[in-house]
Amino acid sequence: MSLAQPAFQDVYPDDLSHCYGCGSNNPQGHQLKSYWLEQEGKQAQTIAHFTPKECHTAIPGFVYGGLIASLIDCHGTGSACAMAYKQAGRELGSSPSMRFVTGKLDVNFLAPTPLGPELTLLGTFSEVKDRKICIDIVVMCEGVKCASGHVIAVKMPENMGQQK
Amino acid sequence: MSLAQPAFQDVYPDDLSHCYGCGSNNPQGHQLKSYWLEQEGKQAQTIAHFTPKECHTAIPGFVYGGLIASLIDCHGTGSACAMAYKQAGRELGSSPSMRFVTGKLDVNFLAPTPLGPELTLLGTFSEVKDRKICIDIVVMCEGVKCASGHVIAVKMPENMGQQK
Repeated sequence: MSLAQPAFQDVYPDDLSHCYGCGSNNPQGHQLKSYWLEQEGKQAQTIAHFTPKECHTAIPGFVYGGLIASLIDCHGTGSACAMAYKQAGRELGSSPSMRFVTGKLDVNFLAPTPLGPELTLLGTFSEVKDRKICIDIVVMCEGVKCASGHVIAVKMPENMGQQK
Repeated sequence: MSLAQPAFQDVYPDDLSHCYGCGSNNPQGHQLKSYWLEQEGKQAQTIAHFTPKECHTAIPGFVYGGLIASLIDCHGTGSACAMAYKQAGRELGSSPSMRFVTGKLDVNFLAPTPLGPELTLLGTFSEVKDRKICIDIVVMCEGVKCASGHVIAVKMPENMGQQK
């Protein structure tokens, strides 16, 4: 990950940046930031980091599953957006904007996720089409794979962004 | 739904009531409440209601998917807990406690969910075993089926609740 690159979510248009999970215009939300994982000669992957707050408890000592599902969801749609720009040969965030929404979200909880340490989400693309992008995501905590997810992201209907 | 019955989550033991999604001891959380849907002569079903806050936005005007996934998750594990007590012929919440955690969570987003109105979650059991209970859940908003989910809930490992 290079700090020189912007987070995918930070180049969303202002009027599409209110998502509780990842919108930079939602001060109460998680503000998840996803990036390209820079690796020479390997398949494109994406990465995000997030440190849950104390309130994000399941039972004491562990992260609640809804947060993990939310992070997988937003890392998935953010990664889909970035991949769509990459495939089109366009600069990330350039107009007209390309946003993706979640069609299907599957999460496997593999091990209890300890509350406290930073989580790392790693995304790998399994299907890339114009209007549908699929991403496999793993959630790691201190080297342990705690959850895996699969996101089917679909291009946002054009009329959806206009509705307030 | 009868107001005479307690919410499933309100009879969790105090030390297992901190979940951000449904714990009555988590003042910052969603505090989802699930109940039996009382229907004569029909298969047991469970119901919960939740009104998202303005901050729970996806893009303006719509509920963010992570919240919907969280509600499905907590309604699923709560329903599993209640069904386990019912199957055992025990009073809900009686000791020793039976809590369930999510093994797998699948969510289909069927239609954009408008932000503002109350959501209704309806749970139907598809598999009931001692240590594994599966629930299909639909999320309705103003009569429209906005999402469906499937939760595989597994009995909580006994050492999990003791870890702080």
